[in-house]
Amino acid sequence: MNEIIQSLLTRRSIRRYAETQVPDDVLDTVLEAGLYAPSGMNTQGVHLVAVRDKETRDLLSKLNAAVMGSDRDPFYGAPCVVVVLADPEIYGGWVEDGALAMGNMMNAAHALGLGSCWIHRARQVFDAPEGKALLEKWGLPTHLRGVGNCILGYAEEAPEARPRKDGRITRV
Amino acid sequence: MNEIIQSLLTRRSIRRYAETQVPDDVLDTVLEAGLYAPSGMNTQGVHLVAVRDKETRDLLSKLNAAVMGSDRDPFYGAPCVVVVLADPEIYGGWVEDGALAMGNMMNAAHALGLGSCWIHRARQVFDAPEGKALLEKWGLPTHLRGVGNCILGYAEEAPEARPRKDGRITRV
Repeated sequence: MNEIIQSLLTRRSIRRYAETQVPDDVLDTVLEAGLYAPSGMNTQGVHLVAVRDKETRDLLSKLNAAVMGSDRDPFYGAPCVVVVLADPEIYGGWVEDGALAMGNMMNAAHALGLGSCWIHRARQVFDAPEGKALLEKWGLPTHLRGVGNCILGYAEEAPEARPRKDGRITRV
Repeated sequence: MNEIIQSLLTRRSIRRYAETQVPDDVLDTVLEAGLYAPSGMNTQGVHLVAVRDKETRDLLSKLNAAVMGSDRDPFYGAPCVVVVLADPEIYGGWVEDGALAMGNMMNAAHALGLGSCWIHRARQVFDAPEGKALLEKWGLPTHLRGVGNCILGYAEEAPEARPRKDGRITRV
């Protein structure tokens, strides 16, 4: 089978990670794939914040957990988190464009031997004062919105593909 | 370079198509890649309507053009359109999940030598009575929402990669 198709079909969300950090060159490739996702009218309004600093990663984990009302690490121990932000003033379809960047990064991660998973609640985190303080600290406009957290790391599990539900395609 | 990464980086939105129809097996692979996109809590609430019937394709073109206030074909002559629908009653993040399916289909199309492009306005088309009548005709629930139109076909252009804007990555 076409290697690219096979990669798209075998990617799985990973929820258990080794402590080993994602190296620079691998992370750079994942980020580049994210930036090359299409965007509405080529507006490129998506911004990626790649977090490997442990203190910042743990703070983000805590803020996301608080929104979930949980005290567990929503990042499943992954040492790297790419926060996908988007600028609603640049393009109205910012959620769609952010999701395409997330998808490209998850597919790139799988192609490079990394595990990944989309963790929600970035919206709520970066709409709140604590999130806006982080945006300021990072030198980013505070009107950016959170689309998702793409957690990255080396998988410590190999989950089986879950079957697709029937009847999800109509042919006309 | 890793063949999969290269494919992610070289996909381009295509806006000029040959009349040649997309064959069954190629279309099936694109649709399968769409279904294998991740979904929130594995809810799989995305539904794909693959349209090759010329009358239906032209009707969808007209409905999308009407929303845009245009009289041109918004599908750029592509003979096949996959309408991505999603069920908001199954999962709140239906726009995100629909976008991931769109992304996987566009990436799969490129891997198979097809061109593709995300055409917006599916939201408005399937929120309107004419769109709901189509959903009924197709035997689908009328509360499904439109996420996007993925046009597919053989490219009659080979656009150059457009440069990525600077400053879209922050490293922490």
